[in-house]
Amino acid sequence: MPYFEDLKIGHREEVGSFTFTAELIKQFASQFDPQPFHLDEEEGRRSLFGGLAASGWHVGSVGMKLLVAKRRRGAEAAAAAGGVADPAWGPSPGFRDLKWLKPVLAGDTLTYASEIISLRESASKPEWGIMQARTTATNQRGEMAYAFTGIAFVPRRP
Amino acid sequence: MPYFEDLKIGHREEVGSFTFTAELIKQFASQFDPQPFHLDEEEGRRSLFGGLAASGWHVGSVGMKLLVAKRRRGAEAAAAAGGVADPAWGPSPGFRDLKWLKPVLAGDTLTYASEIISLRESASKPEWGIMQARTTATNQRGEMAYAFTGIAFVPRRP
Repeated sequence: MPYFEDLKIGHREEVGSFTFTAELIKQFASQFDPQPFHLDEEEGRRSLFGGLAASGWHVGSVGMKLLVAKRRRGAEAAAAAGGVADPAWGPSPGFRDLKWLKPVLAGDTLTYASEIISLRESASKPEWGIMQARTTATNQRGEMAYAFTGIAFVPRRP
Repeated sequence: MPYFEDLKIGHREEVGSFTFTAELIKQFASQFDPQPFHLDEEEGRRSLFGGLAASGWHVGSVGMKLLVAKRRRGAEAAAAAGGVADPAWGPSPGFRDLKWLKPVLAGDTLTYASEIISLRESASKPEWGIMQARTTATNQRGEMAYAFTGIAFVPRRP
């Protein structure tokens, strides 16, 4: 988990992969998005999705899950390599231009990747920098299914 | 659940309210966003959030949950009033300008409301219209904590 000063515009990294099983799709949908095409195979087939489809919020939340897991692995590797302190990242003020481009159907595997597109120092919080990154998720057929531009506060090197 | 032709720009409706308990905040975070300030009260107090804070993806997913519940109540009321058929809404292609404006801390209650800001017919899918709506969520102190502009396909009257 690098400091703001370690980040470079254009740097692209794979975040991780996740398979949306029918069970996980229905489990998320029953809690947060209980529409018929997210809960039932036959309803999904009859819908514009053409099959049991993951809630868009599920697709987004899984991206967050993979990002947190990746940061944790990075921090653990850095700590193992030399006992480097782990700078905690800050809150995100939001994001822009989220697109659900293709249905995510039961059995699909999405691979998420993230590319840094903007870096600037925070005017009001001198100990933080502001990073914008475009995250995309591509399915096992190579089709981009999901994309958004996230904004995050990243700590500056003390 | 109205047809596209029933919608009006500027129409604003309350969607529903939800209290983010510590238990629900930790339950979502442990599945999708296991960062310390979403999992532990003391870590939350030490963070920029100032307390145990809900994941932004939890705040968004709860908005979806309340919207689906509201549409279901509307469809049930319409059916009870006259047996009107229930037009299913279609998929959303995405949204714009999502902002997490204030931390949502354990015990906070958000009230979500939605206002229609744009309506147009779909050029490629004549049986659907495209609605844009600005959704906001306000906490019990009247502070806007969350906002985004959603985009949805809505069926046209046959």
